[in-house]
Amino acid sequence: MRKYLAELIGTFVLVFVGTATVTIGKGSVLTIGLAFGLAVTIMAYSVGAISGGHFNPAVSLAMLLNKRLSLKDFVGYVISQFIGAILASAIVFDLVHELGLSTKNLGQTDFPNISVGGAFITETLVTFLFILVILLVTSNKWGNANFAGLVIGITLALMIIVALNLTGGSLNPARSFGPALFAGGSAMSHYWLYLVAPLVGAVLAAGVGNYMGSEE
Amino acid sequence: MRKYLAELIGTFVLVFVGTATVTIGKGSVLTIGLAFGLAVTIMAYSVGAISGGHFNPAVSLAMLLNKRLSLKDFVGYVISQFIGAILASAIVFDLVHELGLSTKNLGQTDFPNISVGGAFITETLVTFLFILVILLVTSNKWGNANFAGLVIGITLALMIIVALNLTGGSLNPARSFGPALFAGGSAMSHYWLYLVAPLVGAVLAAGVGNYMGSEE
Amino acid sequence: MRKYLAELIGTFVLVFVGTATVTIGKGSVLTIGLAFGLAVTIMAYSVGAISGGHFNPAVSLAMLLNKRLSLKDFVGYVISQFIGAILASAIVFDLVHELGLSTKNLGQTDFPNISVGGAFITETLVTFLFILVILLVTSNKWGNANFAGLVIGITLALMIIVALNLTGGSLNPARSFGPALFAGGSAMSHYWLYLVAPLVGAVLAAGVGNYMGSEE
Amino acid sequence: MRKYLAELIGTFVLVFVGTATVTIGKGSVLTIGLAFGLAVTIMAYSVGAISGGHFNPAVSLAMLLNKRLSLKDFVGYVISQFIGAILASAIVFDLVHELGLSTKNLGQTDFPNISVGGAFITETLVTFLFILVILLVTSNKWGNANFAGLVIGITLALMIIVALNLTGGSLNPARSFGPALFAGGSAMSHYWLYLVAPLVGAVLAAGVGNYMGSEE
Repeated sequence: MRKYLAELIGTFVLVFVGTATVTIGKGSVLTIGLAFGLAVTIMAYSVGAISGGHFNPAVSLAMLLNKRLSLKDFVGYVISQFIGAILASAIVFDLVHELGLSTKNLGQTDFPNISVGGAFITETLVTFLFILVILLVTSNKWGNANFAGLVIGITLALMIIVALNLTGGSLNPARSFGPALFAGGSAMSHYWLYLVAPLVGAVLAAGVGNYMGSEE
Repeated sequence: MRKYLAELIGTFVLVFVGTATVTIGKGSVLTIGLAFGLAVTIMAYSVGAISGGHFNPAVSLAMLLNKRLSLKDFVGYVISQFIGAILASAIVFDLVHELGLSTKNLGQTDFPNISVGGAFITETLVTFLFILVILLVTSNKWGNANFAGLVIGITLALMIIVALNLTGGSLNPARSFGPALFAGGSAMSHYWLYLVAPLVGAVLAAGVGNYMGSEE
Repeated sequence: MRKYLAELIGTFVLVFVGTATVTIGKGSVLTIGLAFGLAVTIMAYSVGAISGGHFNPAVSLAMLLNKRLSLKDFVGYVISQFIGAILASAIVFDLVHELGLSTKNLGQTDFPNISVGGAFITETLVTFLFILVILLVTSNKWGNANFAGLVIGITLALMIIVALNLTGGSLNPARSFGPALFAGGSAMSHYWLYLVAPLVGAVLAAGVGNYMGSEE
Repeated sequence: MRKYLAELIGTFVLVFVGTATVTIGKGSVLTIGLAFGLAVTIMAYSVGAISGGHFNPAVSLAMLLNKRLSLKDFVGYVISQFIGAILASAIVFDLVHELGLSTKNLGQTDFPNISVGGAFITETLVTFLFILVILLVTSNKWGNANFAGLVIGITLALMIIVALNLTGGSLNPARSFGPALFAGGSAMSHYWLYLVAPLVGAVLAAGVGNYMGSEE
């Protein structure tokens, strides 16, 4: 179905552009943040009208909790998002290999310099803020439908700029799974954190967003 | 009340994103300016329809003077803004400590290289320009409601790029208080300047904005 | 005719701004990506209402395939685009020479570090994604006419950030021809790839865009 | 009168933000380009509805030629623009002096590395493109009033990124006069070029813009 393909392509672009900017583009913290964030922006304006433009299982969970997504579509979206992320990392793996760079660095997320607790709090907090913005700016009551795609992308960019040196700045279980699958090592053994913490952030954001009046 | 929570969250995001970009992201002058500025942009589009999106006691003062905010709400907004800033700096303190960096640098504002007079004029001037833009772009007569959040954020970014090497580029008594509370030292003993100069800038902007026709 | 002049000027600005940022501005990967991308943005908002704002033979081919451009206009557009690109490279050649820099670097595209196959796949993939975004964001059904020029420019910027260290990030047969004509060498002997791969990407994008519902 | 004050403040912000980013912010070529360009954007959205938002005698000349500005207002605008630029440079002079930096670098424009002819062609060309975009994007027939302020600012940013290492990227007789007045030296003896070349670019843009249908 078309909306599942939209989520697959959107998540593919997010992971492909973001992790290729880390590994191949070798951009600054601003460049990396903007690459992930604006990838969401361009796909939100391209396929957002088809699927809602989640590209992230944590976002889809918040939409499920606030009754803006059915359970059936939640399952379909999450599967599509993981497929898109895995495809993107497969291609980045090949391009990194083509360039003669180490395939141990595929833009995976990890937290070599801080504790597990610090990493969990960081990912939970930035995902909470990211999804709270999404819920508010896309709400009928308080939001701005025209600017939503731009605002959501900028928010992701800012959260990644803040979290990059702490946890790699994931906020997205699908985005972390793709590179970890091919890079292995501690990115895979630590993957549970990038699965659980963003989902916790999503649950908190759904609750606060509900109180702030984002639910329709 | 919901609008006070909106100001608290908005100021939290402004101080958290901005000072974490300085201390943890270690961004360039452009990255730092955009981090503070675009943090205001994303919160303006998210909660601006709830509270007006001030996130800054100097902005609230100008709105009070131009009769766009009641005295009761002014007090509530300022208290919320200071709580948001303090919470943000507490979290940045913990994350900086987690990373093993010095907690003496929390993104506080100070003016080690220029005179008190030069610092006062700088903060007054950039706050005056910032709030003048806010008053005009949000006015019914001359403004553009859809673009206001983007324009205001870009304006803050530009003013911080200009002032960063002079005074740290505060323009906001709440933004300077949070980090100074935890960092102490001359950031606290010089705090009076970051309280008074932005408020003077706000009074001047309210007057000129009035003449330019921003008042409704 | 006015629309052909619009394509000529638009492609001139794209190649002039982009390749001068590489050779004269000596910008970072972010600066180079934004220079090419935002050049498309400004011309899309200036002359897009006149010609549609293609500035790229691959984009015009996709529009021809999806019946949004006549064959006669396709020929006129492509000729205009090549003239604009050649004029831009002639001026960049002169300015580079004025500055005493080597005229062997005119911002041409090449792939010194990867295989022909890798380069072909890279240019095909990024052009496919670029044109798919164009078809969707300009579609009557799913698109956003006001934001289209901004979204398209950001998309080009992101694709160039990703591809710059692989193939130079062309996505555009006219953009690669101008500098290659004056720089010669392997940029010219490899030109066939920058002609064929973007056109293959355009054909694929036209097909997928058709399925996603972009065709009107 | 209010519209003259709008031009004075707008040109003040353009020159203050732009030249302070060069001298005090010490930004990259991207940062400098965005500082000048986005300064125009924020003032266009703030006071553009009052005065039209020229902030540049060359822009006012093109508007005069295309009958979108009266001769009386042209004179008033130009005087206001020069006053704004001189005030900005006076303040930048003081701040540079405060910081203990050399007041011989105030962000003035000059062309130490290229010939007079090359400099003249560069300033004429980039001003021609800048003003052509302005005329088209603000035209009733082809333009987009909501995005015009953003597009015009981005255009100025791109032209400055291209021209910075050639001529300093002025495009504006008022912007070059302020710093030259305080810095003296060859910036003043070469000032004639920054007066004449942008005006020539404006005349050419008015003509082409007329043909392209921008005149109303």
